[in-house]
Amino acid sequence: MSHRLTVGILGATGAVGQKFVQILDGHPWFEITALAASERSAGKPYHEATEWIGSTPIPEAIADQEVVLGEPGLECDFVFSGLSSNVAGTMEQAFAEAGYPVISNAKNHRMAPTVPLLIPEVNPDHAALLETQTTDGYIVTNPNCSTVGLVCALQPLMQQFGVSQVQVTTLQALSGAGYPGVSSLDALGNVVPYIGGEEDKLTTEPRKLFGTLQDGAITPADITVSAQCNRVPVLEGHLECISVKLSKSATPADVRDAFLNHESPIAALNLPSAPERLLRVFDEPNFPQPRRHADLGRGMNVSIGRIRDCEVLDVKFIALVHNTVRGAAGGAVLNAELLAERGYLQPRPAAVQASS
Amino acid sequence: MSHRLTVGILGATGAVGQKFVQILDGHPWFEITALAASERSAGKPYHEATEWIGSTPIPEAIADQEVVLGEPGLECDFVFSGLSSNVAGTMEQAFAEAGYPVISNAKNHRMAPTVPLLIPEVNPDHAALLETQTTDGYIVTNPNCSTVGLVCALQPLMQQFGVSQVQVTTLQALSGAGYPGVSSLDALGNVVPYIGGEEDKLTTEPRKLFGTLQDGAITPADITVSAQCNRVPVLEGHLECISVKLSKSATPADVRDAFLNHESPIAALNLPSAPERLLRVFDEPNFPQPRRHADLGRGMNVSIGRIRDCEVLDVKFIALVHNTVRGAAGGAVLNAELLAERGYLQPRPAAVQASS
Amino acid sequence: MSHRLTVGILGATGAVGQKFVQILDGHPWFEITALAASERSAGKPYHEATEWIGSTPIPEAIADQEVVLGEPGLECDFVFSGLSSNVAGTMEQAFAEAGYPVISNAKNHRMAPTVPLLIPEVNPDHAALLETQTTDGYIVTNPNCSTVGLVCALQPLMQQFGVSQVQVTTLQALSGAGYPGVSSLDALGNVVPYIGGEEDKLTTEPRKLFGTLQDGAITPADITVSAQCNRVPVLEGHLECISVKLSKSATPADVRDAFLNHESPIAALNLPSAPERLLRVFDEPNFPQPRRHADLGRGMNVSIGRIRDCEVLDVKFIALVHNTVRGAAGGAVLNAELLAERGYLQPRPAAVQASS
Amino acid sequence: MSHRLTVGILGATGAVGQKFVQILDGHPWFEITALAASERSAGKPYHEATEWIGSTPIPEAIADQEVVLGEPGLECDFVFSGLSSNVAGTMEQAFAEAGYPVISNAKNHRMAPTVPLLIPEVNPDHAALLETQTTDGYIVTNPNCSTVGLVCALQPLMQQFGVSQVQVTTLQALSGAGYPGVSSLDALGNVVPYIGGEEDKLTTEPRKLFGTLQDGAITPADITVSAQCNRVPVLEGHLECISVKLSKSATPADVRDAFLNHESPIAALNLPSAPERLLRVFDEPNFPQPRRHADLGRGMNVSIGRIRDCEVLDVKFIALVHNTVRGAAGGAVLNAELLAERGYLQPRPAAVQASS
Repeated sequence: MSHRLTVGILGATGAVGQKFVQILDGHPWFEITALAASERSAGKPYHEATEWIGSTPIPEAIADQEVVLGEPGLECDFVFSGLSSNVAGTMEQAFAEAGYPVISNAKNHRMAPTVPLLIPEVNPDHAALLETQTTDGYIVTNPNCSTVGLVCALQPLMQQFGVSQVQVTTLQALSGAGYPGVSSLDALGNVVPYIGGEEDKLTTEPRKLFGTLQDGAITPADITVSAQCNRVPVLEGHLECISVKLSKSATPADVRDAFLNHESPIAALNLPSAPERLLRVFDEPNFPQPRRHADLGRGMNVSIGRIRDCEVLDVKFIALVHNTVRGAAGGAVLNAELLAERGYLQPRPAAVQASS
Repeated sequence: MSHRLTVGILGATGAVGQKFVQILDGHPWFEITALAASERSAGKPYHEATEWIGSTPIPEAIADQEVVLGEPGLECDFVFSGLSSNVAGTMEQAFAEAGYPVISNAKNHRMAPTVPLLIPEVNPDHAALLETQTTDGYIVTNPNCSTVGLVCALQPLMQQFGVSQVQVTTLQALSGAGYPGVSSLDALGNVVPYIGGEEDKLTTEPRKLFGTLQDGAITPADITVSAQCNRVPVLEGHLECISVKLSKSATPADVRDAFLNHESPIAALNLPSAPERLLRVFDEPNFPQPRRHADLGRGMNVSIGRIRDCEVLDVKFIALVHNTVRGAAGGAVLNAELLAERGYLQPRPAAVQASS
Repeated sequence: MSHRLTVGILGATGAVGQKFVQILDGHPWFEITALAASERSAGKPYHEATEWIGSTPIPEAIADQEVVLGEPGLECDFVFSGLSSNVAGTMEQAFAEAGYPVISNAKNHRMAPTVPLLIPEVNPDHAALLETQTTDGYIVTNPNCSTVGLVCALQPLMQQFGVSQVQVTTLQALSGAGYPGVSSLDALGNVVPYIGGEEDKLTTEPRKLFGTLQDGAITPADITVSAQCNRVPVLEGHLECISVKLSKSATPADVRDAFLNHESPIAALNLPSAPERLLRVFDEPNFPQPRRHADLGRGMNVSIGRIRDCEVLDVKFIALVHNTVRGAAGGAVLNAELLAERGYLQPRPAAVQASS
Repeated sequence: MSHRLTVGILGATGAVGQKFVQILDGHPWFEITALAASERSAGKPYHEATEWIGSTPIPEAIADQEVVLGEPGLECDFVFSGLSSNVAGTMEQAFAEAGYPVISNAKNHRMAPTVPLLIPEVNPDHAALLETQTTDGYIVTNPNCSTVGLVCALQPLMQQFGVSQVQVTTLQALSGAGYPGVSSLDALGNVVPYIGGEEDKLTTEPRKLFGTLQDGAITPADITVSAQCNRVPVLEGHLECISVKLSKSATPADVRDAFLNHESPIAALNLPSAPERLLRVFDEPNFPQPRRHADLGRGMNVSIGRIRDCEVLDVKFIALVHNTVRGAAGGAVLNAELLAERGYLQPRPAAVQASS
């Protein structure tokens, strides 16, 4: 890439927006030129408008950048959306209509028939679905954070044995609820056995992700997922206890081999945010653990462990995903890298930027 | 009961032993007369021998009582065993041979063919199995803490619809590992997705608990359980995410009714430690929670919530059990109450005590 | 008391209001007849209007009681105020003007010259200051939660040796910030070394509490307090590390004796919420601890430990106070009991209630 | 340095030993050639002998290295000691007698008159004290983790204004107690207001660190420290609330300037582990926080905040130190770097290594 594409962050002061800022610091292809937020923040320097929750300081180049109002007209080639779902629907649509590619982490458009729901290592061909959109720009989404962990883990099994049924119980980190999110009086020394809307996403999104793109439409995969979701007092990293029914007989050893030997379909592309290997398999009985292993592969790995027979379905195991990196901002950045590599992201003519 | 039975506590200084001491404080039927522990503690007053971890002080009548060596000869009518599994096997056997009823929380003898594995509200008739034991005394056990929560929740469904398959994922409290137990460096802000031996107990114990006693032997029930067990940073209360396959069709509403209408087979006995109703059903979507609800019914309730359709099996829901009360010491005390009511616990002749 | 006084709770749905509801459940002298809150809650049954955070269920008599708008006209003999400080100032004033005694936990009027700042065991005579108020009703306040722990601990030393200088560092529980209060992302595995306004209260309130009431005015005591306040991931119980400069020489043993022998000036009154003894002294080097000892004396004790020489001032020690019971709602209830015993709380004529 | 010095780690499998392994991974001057531990571990590959608690995997070059018995004869130019205090005294002495420089984190020899207690940025000249030792090798120590934070913060004030009295209350992380260390049942949602021996170290070590080396002996500084130490549920990072009496009058602004303008005496040396600046000053009222800021400067910074007037002494502020990096293994590595730069660490002749 001869020079870097310019990027706007929608919802730049929120928890996901902050993670975009962190992850894009020093990115070889993308450069933040617009930090967009609501009227309350617009006009202030970023470090003032933001209650920064990161454990590393705000990148220096960003700290004093002025926050602008989040509406079309931003000076950038494309936007990442870290918007909350109550505004993401219409605002992302407005940016797409104004000609911007919108790489979104919000849930609003995920299941829309013309919007790719994309994990580069799982369904990179679904990117082409964006061509069915009729706006000047387009919208591409990444899945729910728990879905990402589940689907990345299931992908090798899907390919090699087929997966028809899945039982998954999640133990999800607090950061998944944003900031301020969960009250410490609910979280400390406790489990909240409910996360609104989460179980439904785990049931529906995998069907689209594993679906088949043909003639500009996706036929959902025939996979049944039952989910139980819990919030646990962990900062980062969703742990998922998974049991699967396979279409073809396989032992736990076969399943372990499938995880270990799985080749990413985008391995040859060497995208900057792609980990060397997507999956990391642990043989220690008590690994992976959220606090110790969520950061592996700079948060872009999915870790697998405890592969064994299931007495009810066929095989059970656990998977761990960094919910705010691989499961949110990092996944969106990887999506943008795939789109850039495929030619779907281009410098926007200055004229367009000025007039839009 | 004209006067109180005298009680010895084996392993009195450990975490379970301490819970026995707490729970028996002011008990109307039982009075602690012997606090037994290893040589290291014997001879010291209890408050010195014990690193007391309770949040209420040591009962006054107990604090200065001298700890004695744990071997037959204790002056008491029967013993509770809070021994750890590395010594419980032989020591409980020795007490039974010396004529003591042993009401044990240890795992060692649970699956022995002549030893009742007992939850009074679930299989009170199994108490009679102790008559098949050939020692002068006998051993009666309560199940693993997670099994208790699962089986208490399944019991009404078993009776009304039949349960053939169960998927359960547990989120278990730290106190289940005893003291010092889990290192804070493993526990804080983390999940340890493994508890040695736990999943196996959840698979095997329910088969015995739901089994049929006939001709002095138990035929195990035909129920398949697949378990995934996790340690979470919670102090007390195991939360279990359960999916069941029923033999007879039932809606979530039917299942809720079954929980609500279930009559305990020991309700009429008014045992001192039995809660008014065993099960407590929550309709709030985010309840029950370990920190808020584990103590309900003085820790003897099992709380149920989130009853809904399961996409893979039939119905799913959550259950919460206080692991060190209902799931350990409190369950053992209730077992003793049932045995006392049935005439299996009697004052031992002083001569026997003196000579044993 | 021939029959119970009727009570209104201002801010009944908030964290402090909920604690009033819990503590007053079964109170021998006071009965809740009015649950008052803002327009958003008024008209709803209490259990619907309230996000109940207690670990015991809402008392049955209260759960379905209708919440009313918080304004004069409530049918009750007096009110407890659990209002937040942004509304407490004017609203408490309005109730006092309408003839209601207002027993407040809010900070707004604490330092007003005519308003008693009251801890019954410390300065019961200050209650008489309310007679200088010119409204039909009056306002009485309890101190900040950290101040309560500090002043209760200092009182015996003040009386016996004199205390001129105090250094105090607090480790304060999350519940002190109300609900939702501190975000779990700030609290978990962290310390927030700042609590807005708290250090100032610890400096100023003790001067009034230890002051002398003469001719209808309080002359502040000459005591200098320097405070450093921290929020730690604890649910209930503020721990305070205290060093004192004494006016009269004393050894740690003398100080320990002073704590142990201190007689409460209200001991003879047998107020329902007063603990048998105010202070509890621990000799174990690692006690008291918030999670284990905050509840002592049903949360109304102040626990002391680690009494030893201070290399810079004279003596140092630690104190623990249950911040939402003794330090807030429980302290206010005890204040009301003292006022009732002194004749400052009476049944209000129904006519007044109707017309106000 | 033409080629790297070879290093042995004593106590390599323990918590501090593991931190040495992590920190030395990729070190430009030092290379681990001997991982030493007790008989139980000797002969096993490091990854088997060690219950690794780090959040990054064991460095690849180390994982399969064989653990050797910790006794003189190790093939290395010098050793780092992460030994626990019950064995460090004699074993470090044995290594020093056998000709090894011993760079120790243990407390045993810290206060010995001929042993440097060293923080390179504070008292680098004290390194010369090792020349008074009579063994073939020598012992150099770093201070207790809490002392390091305190003394680094006091150093600029000492130089510019003089410091005569210090009150410090610490909120210390769990990792300071090693592994398994503090039980989760003591740590979770709790404070343990006692750490054995810690307060004494905070009182005595600063006197030596700020002392004057003359004629081969150190005259302790005349500084009085009173400490209160608490264990809080934090993973890494000791927070200290500090009040100081200054010899020369200074405002909080003067103190802030002193922190900001302080020049490290070793700045010109560019030691690999030395942070660009030792102190980092925060102006936000709620910073620094352990979880967010302990890692600054790769854990080698000391962070300062909340500088303000003290009502009892002169000025108060807070300081934060990464207890296992700057306060332990990282501090020891920096000590070794200083010693290497000064010529006190040299390749040992192979003959010596073979015969020793």
